[in-house]
Amino acid sequence: MARPTPLLKDELDIVIPTIRNLDFLEMWRPFFQHYHLIIVQDGDPSKQIKVPEGFDYELYNRNDINRILGSKASCISFKDSACRCFGFLVSKKKYIFTIDDDCFVAKDPSSKDINALEQHIKNLLSPSTPYFFNTLYDPYREGTDFVRGYPFSLREGVQTAISHGLWLNIPDYDAPTQLVKPSERNTRYVDAVMTIPKGTLFPMCGMNLAFNRELIGPAMYFGLMGDGQPIGRYDDMWAGWCCKVICDHLGYGVKTGLPYIWHSKASNPFVNLKKEYKGIFWQEEIIPFFQSAVLSKEATSVEQCYRELAKQVREKLSNVDPYFSKLADAMVTWIESWEELTSNKIVAGGVKASSGGVHHANGPTTKVASPLPPPPAVVEELGSPAA
Amino acid sequence: MARPTPLLKDELDIVIPTIRNLDFLEMWRPFFQHYHLIIVQDGDPSKQIKVPEGFDYELYNRNDINRILGSKASCISFKDSACRCFGFLVSKKKYIFTIDDDCFVAKDPSSKDINALEQHIKNLLSPSTPYFFNTLYDPYREGTDFVRGYPFSLREGVQTAISHGLWLNIPDYDAPTQLVKPSERNTRYVDAVMTIPKGTLFPMCGMNLAFNRELIGPAMYFGLMGDGQPIGRYDDMWAGWCCKVICDHLGYGVKTGLPYIWHSKASNPFVNLKKEYKGIFWQEEIIPFFQSAVLSKEATSVEQCYRELAKQVREKLSNVDPYFSKLADAMVTWIESWEELTSNKIVAGGVKASSGGVHHANGPTTKVASPLPPPPAVVEELGSPAA
Repeated sequence: MARPTPLLKDELDIVIPTIRNLDFLEMWRPFFQHYHLIIVQDGDPSKQIKVPEGFDYELYNRNDINRILGSKASCISFKDSACRCFGFLVSKKKYIFTIDDDCFVAKDPSSKDINALEQHIKNLLSPSTPYFFNTLYDPYREGTDFVRGYPFSLREGVQTAISHGLWLNIPDYDAPTQLVKPSERNTRYVDAVMTIPKGTLFPMCGMNLAFNRELIGPAMYFGLMGDGQPIGRYDDMWAGWCCKVICDHLGYGVKTGLPYIWHSKASNPFVNLKKEYKGIFWQEEIIPFFQSAVLSKEATSVEQCYRELAKQVREKLSNVDPYFSKLADAMVTWIESWEELTSNKIVAGGVKASSGGVHHANGPTTKVASPLPPPPAVVEELGSPAA
Repeated sequence: MARPTPLLKDELDIVIPTIRNLDFLEMWRPFFQHYHLIIVQDGDPSKQIKVPEGFDYELYNRNDINRILGSKASCISFKDSACRCFGFLVSKKKYIFTIDDDCFVAKDPSSKDINALEQHIKNLLSPSTPYFFNTLYDPYREGTDFVRGYPFSLREGVQTAISHGLWLNIPDYDAPTQLVKPSERNTRYVDAVMTIPKGTLFPMCGMNLAFNRELIGPAMYFGLMGDGQPIGRYDDMWAGWCCKVICDHLGYGVKTGLPYIWHSKASNPFVNLKKEYKGIFWQEEIIPFFQSAVLSKEATSVEQCYRELAKQVREKLSNVDPYFSKLADAMVTWIESWEELTSNKIVAGGVKASSGGVHHANGPTTKVASPLPPPPAVVEELGSPAA
C-alpha cells in the first residue's frame, strides 16, 4: 500500500539540542525519517555525536555557532538546552518541531503509538481561538464544533503560531516540586487541544514544541542560560512569555495539549535547584512584567515587537538583577542575527539542495546519513541540555 | 460496609427546572438521594409533576413564584428554563447544583457511572487558578501539580465560584450548528478540569452546572426569556457572562471540564432557531460589551457589582434593542428580590426543619416524599425548559 507523503515534509525542520548519541531517534524513525533534522550539539565540540543511519541531518557544534555568528555568537547559550534556538535561526523552513533527546514515543489510551509530529502539524495548520473560550476544546477537530453562545464572528479563528505538546511519565516540574514529589508520574492522557486565551501567560516547555517560524520565529529566543550565567532552566519559559505577549499583540494563536511524548527520565532535582533558584524568585517579578507589557501600534512585525520588548526588559527588569541588562543586550543581538541570516537566506536561496548544509561559505558540520555504522558513542554529562 | 456521608449533604440544593415527570431522577438516585431538591415547575401550574418516591424536595410552580415574589415575579421567566434561577433565589444553602431533566448519568472510559455531583463538589471545594495557565490542567488534582515556571505566589489559587460541567452524546450546539450537523454526537471524554483564565469569557451552559451560592449567587440570574420575550436559549449565556465579569472583578475562579452528564435528546433546531435568532446577532455586540465592562473599586460585593452591571447594560446595550432596558430593569428587580429573601432568611431561619418548605407564611407547594406511588404522569410540551 502506498503511504501518503508526510505532511509538510519539505517545510519543516526538526531541531534537537543534545550532548549525546541520538539513539532515541530509532524509536521516532517511522515518524521523523522523511524530515530534515537540525542537531545543535552542546558542550565540548570535539566530541562526536552519533546519529542513527538513514536520517537526513545537519549538525552544529559550538565551533560552528561561533564561526557562523562571529561576535554575535554570545547570544547563544552554552551548556544549556537554550542553545536549541540556534537551530531555529539557521533553519530555512516555515515550521519547526523541537524535541529533547530523552523524549520517546508515547502511547494513546488504545496503546497506539502517538505520532507527535503529525499532531503538532495539525495543531499548527488549523486556526486558534484566543478571544473566547470554547468549552468543547478545539472546535476544528473532527466530531466537535463551537458550542451555543460562541460568537459567529469569531469562528474563523486566527493563525496558529505555536503548538505546545505535553508529557506522559515524568512531568515537567520545577526542582522544589521534584524534591517534594520525587515519584509522581503523569499517567493521565487528556484528549484535548486548546487555545490559550489572549492575555493569559503560560509556562512553555521546550521539550515537545512546534511553531510557525515565519509567524513567530524571531521571538523564539531561549535567552542566556547555562555556562557563565546565573540561571538555567528558564530558557523555554522566557521564550514562552515573550512569544505569548507578541502573539497576543499580533493576533496569533497559541495551543496546548496534544500531542504527548513519553518523557523518560527525571533530571537531578538538586542540580535543577541550583540552576533554578534565582528564577524562582525572579519569576515573581518577571511574570507581572509580561502580564502588563504593552507593545506599540507601530510594532507590526515580530522583529519590531521583539525589539520593543528588549527595551522594556532593560528598563523594567534591570532593577531586579543586572542579568536582565545583559539579557536585553542578548535579545537585541539575537534579533540582529535573525535579520542577518534571514537576508542571507534570500541571497543563498538556491544552494541548499547540494547537501542539506546552510551558509556554505562558513558552513556547519554537515553530514549526510551514512549506511556505515557510526563511530562509538561519546558521552558528556556536564550541565548540558538533557542532563 | 458503612457508606461515607455524602459530601455537603446539608449544604447543597439540587435545582431542577421542569415541565414533566421527573423519571430521570431514578437514574440519579444513588447520587442524589441524600440531597434536597428544589423543583421549579415551568408552564401550566395546574399540571402535576410526578417525582419518584424517596426524594426530599420542594416544588414551586408559577403560582408559588407569583405569590412569593409578588410584583417582582416579573423578573422570573415563564416557559423557559431560565425559570430555574427562582430555585437559586429560594435556596438557603451554600451550594447549588442545577441539572436539566433530559440529562442522565454518563459513563467514564472505564464504563463506570460518573457521579457528576461529587465531581462538581470537588471542583467547588478546591481552588481555581485564573491568573496563569497550568498546562497540566487542574494542579490540585491527585497525581498532578503546578508545572515548572508556574509562579509560587499564585499556587494557593483563589476560591472557586462556579463549576461548569460538560455533556456526552448531544453537544450543546446552537440552532445553525444543529441544522448543519444534525447527527454529530460528543463521544470524547476529556479527562480534565481547568480554570477559565481571568479576562476570558466563555459560553456557560445551565444544563450541568454548580456554583457557590454565597460567593456568586446574586449574579446567577438567567434573564428574561421565553413567554413574552423576543429571545430564548440565552438565559445561561447571560448568567455566564455576568458571572464571569463579576468573578474576575472579585477574584473568584470559574472551572470547566469534568463532570460529564449524558445529554439524551437534541431539542428541535427549528424551534431553537426561532428562539435564538436575535441572540445570534445581538451576541456580536453583547460579548464586546462584557469583554470591556469595568466595575468600580467600590463594588466589593456581588450585589453591588450586579447593580453596576445592570446600569451599564441599560446605558450601553439599550441601543442594540429596547429589550435590554427591560432586561436591565429585571436585573435590578432580581437583585432586590435576592436581598429581600436573603434578609427574610435570617428572620425565618429556624423553621425549615418542619417540612423542608421555605417561606412558610406564603409557602410553596412543599412535598415530602411519600412511600405511596405518585399520581399519574402529566405531560406538557409547549415552549418549556427541556423541550
